[in-house]
Amino acid sequence: MPRIPLELHPDRLFPADQATRDLARALYATVEKLPILSPHGHTDPQWFADDTPFPDASALFITPDHYVFRMLYSQGVRLEDLGIARRDGAPVETDARRIWHRFAERYHLFRGTPTRIWLDHAFATVFGCTERLTPESADRIFDRINACLAKPEFRPRALFRRFNIEVIATTESPLDRLAHHQKLRDSGWKGRVITAYRPDPVVDPQFEGFHANVMEFGALASEDTATWHGYLAAHRKRRAFFKSMGATSTDHGHPTACTCDLPEASCQRLLDRALAGTASPEEAEQFRGQVLTEMARMSIEDGLVMQIHPGAWRNHNPRIAREFGRDKGADIPTRTEYVRALKPLLDRYGNERNLTVVLFTLDETTYARELAPLAGHYPILRLGPAWWFYDSPEGMQRFREQVTETAGFYNTVGFNDDTRAFLSIPARHDVARRMDCRFLATLVVEHKIAEDEAFELAPELAYGLAKRAYRL
Amino acid sequence: MPRIPLELHPDRLFPADQATRDLARALYATVEKLPILSPHGHTDPQWFADDTPFPDASALFITPDHYVFRMLYSQGVRLEDLGIARRDGAPVETDARRIWHRFAERYHLFRGTPTRIWLDHAFATVFGCTERLTPESADRIFDRINACLAKPEFRPRALFRRFNIEVIATTESPLDRLAHHQKLRDSGWKGRVITAYRPDPVVDPQFEGFHANVMEFGALASEDTATWHGYLAAHRKRRAFFKSMGATSTDHGHPTACTCDLPEASCQRLLDRALAGTASPEEAEQFRGQVLTEMARMSIEDGLVMQIHPGAWRNHNPRIAREFGRDKGADIPTRTEYVRALKPLLDRYGNERNLTVVLFTLDETTYARELAPLAGHYPILRLGPAWWFYDSPEGMQRFREQVTETAGFYNTVGFNDDTRAFLSIPARHDVARRMDCRFLATLVVEHKIAEDEAFELAPELAYGLAKRAYRL
Amino acid sequence: MPRIPLELHPDRLFPADQATRDLARALYATVEKLPILSPHGHTDPQWFADDTPFPDASALFITPDHYVFRMLYSQGVRLEDLGIARRDGAPVETDARRIWHRFAERYHLFRGTPTRIWLDHAFATVFGCTERLTPESADRIFDRINACLAKPEFRPRALFRRFNIEVIATTESPLDRLAHHQKLRDSGWKGRVITAYRPDPVVDPQFEGFHANVMEFGALASEDTATWHGYLAAHRKRRAFFKSMGATSTDHGHPTACTCDLPEASCQRLLDRALAGTASPEEAEQFRGQVLTEMARMSIEDGLVMQIHPGAWRNHNPRIAREFGRDKGADIPTRTEYVRALKPLLDRYGNERNLTVVLFTLDETTYARELAPLAGHYPILRLGPAWWFYDSPEGMQRFREQVTETAGFYNTVGFNDDTRAFLSIPARHDVARRMDCRFLATLVVEHKIAEDEAFELAPELAYGLAKRAYRL
Repeated sequence: MPRIPLELHPDRLFPADQATRDLARALYATVEKLPILSPHGHTDPQWFADDTPFPDASALFITPDHYVFRMLYSQGVRLEDLGIARRDGAPVETDARRIWHRFAERYHLFRGTPTRIWLDHAFATVFGCTERLTPESADRIFDRINACLAKPEFRPRALFRRFNIEVIATTESPLDRLAHHQKLRDSGWKGRVITAYRPDPVVDPQFEGFHANVMEFGALASEDTATWHGYLAAHRKRRAFFKSMGATSTDHGHPTACTCDLPEASCQRLLDRALAGTASPEEAEQFRGQVLTEMARMSIEDGLVMQIHPGAWRNHNPRIAREFGRDKGADIPTRTEYVRALKPLLDRYGNERNLTVVLFTLDETTYARELAPLAGHYPILRLGPAWWFYDSPEGMQRFREQVTETAGFYNTVGFNDDTRAFLSIPARHDVARRMDCRFLATLVVEHKIAEDEAFELAPELAYGLAKRAYRL
Repeated sequence: MPRIPLELHPDRLFPADQATRDLARALYATVEKLPILSPHGHTDPQWFADDTPFPDASALFITPDHYVFRMLYSQGVRLEDLGIARRDGAPVETDARRIWHRFAERYHLFRGTPTRIWLDHAFATVFGCTERLTPESADRIFDRINACLAKPEFRPRALFRRFNIEVIATTESPLDRLAHHQKLRDSGWKGRVITAYRPDPVVDPQFEGFHANVMEFGALASEDTATWHGYLAAHRKRRAFFKSMGATSTDHGHPTACTCDLPEASCQRLLDRALAGTASPEEAEQFRGQVLTEMARMSIEDGLVMQIHPGAWRNHNPRIAREFGRDKGADIPTRTEYVRALKPLLDRYGNERNLTVVLFTLDETTYARELAPLAGHYPILRLGPAWWFYDSPEGMQRFREQVTETAGFYNTVGFNDDTRAFLSIPARHDVARRMDCRFLATLVVEHKIAEDEAFELAPELAYGLAKRAYRL
Repeated sequence: MPRIPLELHPDRLFPADQATRDLARALYATVEKLPILSPHGHTDPQWFADDTPFPDASALFITPDHYVFRMLYSQGVRLEDLGIARRDGAPVETDARRIWHRFAERYHLFRGTPTRIWLDHAFATVFGCTERLTPESADRIFDRINACLAKPEFRPRALFRRFNIEVIATTESPLDRLAHHQKLRDSGWKGRVITAYRPDPVVDPQFEGFHANVMEFGALASEDTATWHGYLAAHRKRRAFFKSMGATSTDHGHPTACTCDLPEASCQRLLDRALAGTASPEEAEQFRGQVLTEMARMSIEDGLVMQIHPGAWRNHNPRIAREFGRDKGADIPTRTEYVRALKPLLDRYGNERNLTVVLFTLDETTYARELAPLAGHYPILRLGPAWWFYDSPEGMQRFREQVTETAGFYNTVGFNDDTRAFLSIPARHDVARRMDCRFLATLVVEHKIAEDEAFELAPELAYGLAKRAYRL
């Protein structure tokens, strides 16, 4: 059986038209090797702190990647058969090779998806694979990857350098002691791994263990977090600690973009009810919304860039949540409204000069209708890149087409990979750089901007905008 | 006056770029002649049972096609003048030639619409017309079509064979005795015309004659449909009967995608109020939503594939409904929500392995935001093709662009023509095949998938996916 | 330092593909020089009545153009520093050259926006500039424009003729005495500048000064506008007066598309509460909605075309509204619903033959889902062009792609520039003509329509449809 070559074409993602393709390629040549800025993501700081080898191909590519196993699950593969741990400890598949085969047999399911692009990119560029993953080639590729992983040059820190990462941000809860970051710092390693302040566990009254979280939060900060005043003071202290560990940003993953600006007495009452577990859904929403406005105020004080990631319905499938826990590919986007939701925060702080709020969305209908018009007016607002399900060629194309005419390029903040799949990071940035160069080339060929402007914009989109927006 | 040729270009619907066009053409050559699977539609089984000739060009192309007369109506043509029957029996135009002329004079209105593509395709390929329909050519084309219709090779069964239809599903109410299907079966004719179970008249408390319908339903099934238990039993029996007449699917045309999972006592109470005509709009919604969940349960038992077609505001124009009745081009799409609406059904049956629920939409904003993420996770869900107003080149393009990256190709189910316009069926499948080949060719040229993969996918999209998803 | 040429390429906005570009260019050649019909906009009639020179480049291009200063504001420039007058009379920048420099230093912010296209077009075609605006060229361009403005051939009437404007509509409140229009008429100047009836100040109970406005309205019309009967009679009289001053249309800029059809007693009660300032937000909405239906009735009587421009959240930024007033770039689109909202008006008048209602939207999700299906059925409905934030190449492309397949071309009304930026008018029509020719060329190259049809459609889209729809 002839081996099927793994195609990683130098012109991939560029448009068919030759003149546009040539220009896209020329633009891309100027940004291809720029360092990677990863100002928002979910890699595990322990990887870099401990620098132990990744175990095997399945543990690297399948078990931790919800993009991968959600697709397999949608086509009838049991999560147990992919080695996803059950919460009840019941046995799941432990044979990494068998898991890899189940994946290889269904690799065609990923045709047309960004997952396919990321995986092929990692197979080819990181592990030197030259044939496509098929049931027939599965063993050879599995063995090759595992052989690589055993070598020192495939350990996390070596890959970090090889990927040319200038800085990467992880995301931690205020309850995190940042021990891995401390260990990293103590190690004297030069790689820049910073944290980001993601306070959802102490901000969302509907978060599992909210009361205990807020109590622990108070203990950590030596503040009485049962009072609104102490609760805010605890945030200030933990933000300062995170900042001391490199953080330049906060992040807020709320169900909606709701913000509030309530009198202090109402805040105390909401906190009381949230801690007592008696907050209604509306009150929980108000509490989260009030904290967003407080976070904006604190960002003006301490300079942390504020990110809002609203609109995911987390754990939509209760059986999966019960049996396997959070982040198992069962989060679904929802319709999201910004114009009314953000008004309380904007009324209070929208005209500030030293505050940056980066908005994300899972509802693309808001790009042209709400987000671009808002960011094209309010000085504090910037637009984050196409996120999650839209971190993809078509998703990026829609983002630029629907945002640029109203918000321009300079109200956007470059690319975020936002991933826990470390191996996909170079691939994701590569896709973003290619799609941005494609977009710029099209603008030039259609005479909307001049060629010199495209060459000035390309490195801004790949590097400069993120550097400045995230204060890196 | 020189005759204007009717253009039916072999490269129609393919993109301008030559490399992409060449590949699209090559892909299309492999699927062009595949048999037609029409797993969901509204053709009249009597055509095939009786096999009598279609009367004339106007009765074939204008009077029964709401796409055609809604456009003419929007530009000031009275429905009476197109020969649409009035409910009060008041006289309407009966001169088929005059109707045809009114249509021909306004054929330019259809420029840029799929209706124009379908009509030209039928004129050229079925009737051998070589000139464009204009006021000047109207008589010649009218006469030509009528002359054809008088010949045996233009009767319904002959066209069925000529169109290379492997199987076509009609859509019937549970109250239908399926006499035409029985006659067809008794006739020994080899054409496969199957039914589909569409229970809206006994599921929607707001359907005209709901009480009488449910009573008749009970009588047909020998069940007491005034009890929830008997009502469900009647569904089971009629589903079994439909299945015995070839049905492989059910279909549900609800105003929203609402599903419910209520305790049995509530179901009985809702049924009581629905039968008494005292159900509020919210209760009617709950009743329909509960039945959807029951239908899912029954589909697990009997294997019928379940289709949900939500989001049409039927009979939006009360004057048209009053004077001309249902299905007269006055149905308008509405904003439709799926993530919350489907949750009760999904919570109950979303993780089943032997259930298929095919989702459709008239709200394209849900493609990337709701439908693709849902279908890319839940094993029971598949996505139906672009529907109704979006059964069009741009509509199909948007569907693939917005769905594929998250759901892949294999969570979609191929094409449905969903039409009562028999002559448009080959044209509609042709458009779908061309647009899919175009999409695949673009993926290849932009190096997102390899060429061999596109050649494997093309017949899947044209044939294989429908065959398997609909269990044909 | 070499001067950077100002690029205004003859093929701008045409697609890369050569065959399509060639055809787009050929189509464009047939419409490029057609007269401009501007049936809806916000130019100042005083310009044409008095014909005094425009003061300087900054006062022409920056201070009055909210597209320009909203972008600069979003990037941290204070409105005071751009010379925008404060309501409290506090000092703002008065040095036009300094304002111009602030703008020139940030001209890169507009890359990829339509503002950039319009400005370059005006710089090049009106003022003969041959170099791009940069900080380095700022003085030369500023001086050149100012030198031009001092010449007679750059006065408003001369530009009107030079721009080949056949007719332009301004927009006035019923409280306007139309003195400038009267002066124009008396002057014997041949330029056709007509008014349009925009009654928002006496229709929206939430409009500043509503009570006083309605009283003044009554005085002007010699009607008792405290009674519903008198209020309607005043509308009839003022409409007649506007019509006598050339108006062919009315315009309604409401927060939503809500219409109502209430009994007369309810109307009187709503008017009472609106005048007393005690109307709730819901009652204000009902009042506006009822007046829309009344306006439709009056349009049937007097033949004025009715335009509905819903969905802008006006003055979203309270600080800007407080300090600088209305129309300062702080209006944001909102999600807009039409299918339910328009039903009362449509139920009453949707099937009329001598009424035209032109619908606009700031919510592009409604193009394919609501607006095209509605306009493709109801005889009174036509679709206005891509509006405001979507008056842009991508916006126009999305409009045609999402509307045409269901509504066709003939349910649209050609282009509106809808601007108060006089110098941008030729540029905006040029963009619209180019994008429409591009769209037509693509249809031909993909064999969806024939070439002769595209040549027939091009002048319709550029001229004919507007002429007929607006009864010009």
